[in-house]
Amino acid sequence: MSPAAPDLDVLALGSAIVDVIASADDETVAAHGLAKGTMALVDAARAEELYGRMGPAVEVSGGSAANTVAGVASFGAAAGFIGKVRDDQLGQVFAHDIRSIGVHYDTPPATSGEPTARCLVLVTPDGERTMSTFLGAATGLAADDVEPAVVEAAKVTYLEGYLWDPPEAIDALRRAIAVAHGADRLVAFTLSDPFCVDRHRDEFLDLIARDVDVLFANEVEILSLFQVEDVKEALERVRDLCQVVAVTRSEHGSVVVSGAETVAVPAVPVERVVDTTGAGDLYAAGFLFGLARGESWQRCAELGSLAAAEVISHIGARPQVPLASLV
Amino acid sequence: MSPAAPDLDVLALGSAIVDVIASADDETVAAHGLAKGTMALVDAARAEELYGRMGPAVEVSGGSAANTVAGVASFGAAAGFIGKVRDDQLGQVFAHDIRSIGVHYDTPPATSGEPTARCLVLVTPDGERTMSTFLGAATGLAADDVEPAVVEAAKVTYLEGYLWDPPEAIDALRRAIAVAHGADRLVAFTLSDPFCVDRHRDEFLDLIARDVDVLFANEVEILSLFQVEDVKEALERVRDLCQVVAVTRSEHGSVVVSGAETVAVPAVPVERVVDTTGAGDLYAAGFLFGLARGESWQRCAELGSLAAAEVISHIGARPQVPLASLV
Repeated sequence: MSPAAPDLDVLALGSAIVDVIASADDETVAAHGLAKGTMALVDAARAEELYGRMGPAVEVSGGSAANTVAGVASFGAAAGFIGKVRDDQLGQVFAHDIRSIGVHYDTPPATSGEPTARCLVLVTPDGERTMSTFLGAATGLAADDVEPAVVEAAKVTYLEGYLWDPPEAIDALRRAIAVAHGADRLVAFTLSDPFCVDRHRDEFLDLIARDVDVLFANEVEILSLFQVEDVKEALERVRDLCQVVAVTRSEHGSVVVSGAETVAVPAVPVERVVDTTGAGDLYAAGFLFGLARGESWQRCAELGSLAAAEVISHIGARPQVPLASLV
Repeated sequence: MSPAAPDLDVLALGSAIVDVIASADDETVAAHGLAKGTMALVDAARAEELYGRMGPAVEVSGGSAANTVAGVASFGAAAGFIGKVRDDQLGQVFAHDIRSIGVHYDTPPATSGEPTARCLVLVTPDGERTMSTFLGAATGLAADDVEPAVVEAAKVTYLEGYLWDPPEAIDALRRAIAVAHGADRLVAFTLSDPFCVDRHRDEFLDLIARDVDVLFANEVEILSLFQVEDVKEALERVRDLCQVVAVTRSEHGSVVVSGAETVAVPAVPVERVVDTTGAGDLYAAGFLFGLARGESWQRCAELGSLAAAEVISHIGARPQVPLASLV
């Protein structure tokens, strides 16, 4: 008999990744053949080559959805995570960090195959980050890793678009969606990245229409989704597909559309933008925290802005101070 | 035929360590049974237990002497390092980071035995750090790892007191000293830590009298060395044993004694002390950089203060901006 699943506010499925963060100037980013501000998937050989050319780095747990639940936990809510590491040192780092902040995490690590995923992050002086992700063991997430009782016990199950990249993980996502909706729970989804939308546009449109209750995107992603050039048009097209859609607009804050309602919420000003890594992830954290607490869309978006402002004020994609202390 | 050794300003021998840094309050430090502000050696089991109780952490290359040569390289001088990692992920991180800043490092990693050393660092709100070090593979440093040509080509060979802890490493240190002095090069040494002095007081006194040209210590360490209570008395006792002795005094700067000369140099003020990890290491970096450049003791100490001020202004024990840009 397995122990009872904990009651969770938010459960996330995502890639379990350790970020390897280094400073770089714009010339270096270009010289490495990288498109500034984007996330590209790389294989082991390319990751090795890029790492060899990077400056001294800091290793810190990351992963988009993992950052989000770290934020949810930091607000004081109950959070869980499902994602795959290898039984190696970086896998231990990932598991330690997410558990140490109180996130329920018990996906068994892979005992063979590729090492734990890493994301090579180059932070330019303007605070933008350019990411090269080697997915490694994260691609091994399988349907078996999704314990139905855990999904049933979560108010919201949050899925990252990035998980559509490894083919096997899709079974895990479909299982999570089926269980969540079977238990009358909410399914939230983030488009993750404009290139990710490019890779999976049809599946994403189908998923959003059928399975997504709460959608997160930034402006570039939502434009890419509908292949239009006007954000208003994209918002009108997505409006009736989901219960609520939150579109982040960097320093302009965010717009939330839900049925006939449209709410624009400003960004929380920060003294200096140090590293934008995790801004979207933490916006989702604040929003989902508010959602689980039954707050208005306005308040959900404000909580999102609050969490995003904290995380862009320092290096790294997880909060450095308890977000609960900022509310 | 091996390639010609590079001309180095400073070559360091030390423990090759990855720091695992987390924030903690004073109560947590005490609850873990740790003496605040000190470094304790721990075995694998204790390291595991402490790590399990730590909050989310950041991994970043460390090691006292390794931090020092990272600083020397950051000033724009030629630096090298000898120290042992395992062929594991943290070992790759250590090797990558030190090479990426231009430090000559080619000690072969161990292919069996204990994993790469780590230092669990708890940083309290006052910026103090409390360290628990699991030496692991670092204890495997052996005389064979000291290539005579590399030592002969270095103006100064810098040794950390910590290396007296693993018994085998002493052979490596003795070989380095013999080669350096045989080639009319300088030997520098740091007392590292008051508890380290306690463990090896007689060996250290003997070493300083016979083999050390340049000695680094803080006030607590130099008092411990001579088991006296007055820093002036300690300075008089050490004055004639070495060519030069630099004693750091935290916010009071440093005192340099050399023959009849005594020079007091103030600290460089910082806006906020974030993390004192690496302050002594970086002071030594600035001082050794000045020494290799033939600067006066006054100027050497000023360069030490400059480097120390940079490193205590942020989390982590290596410079975040090129120190050359601050000179």
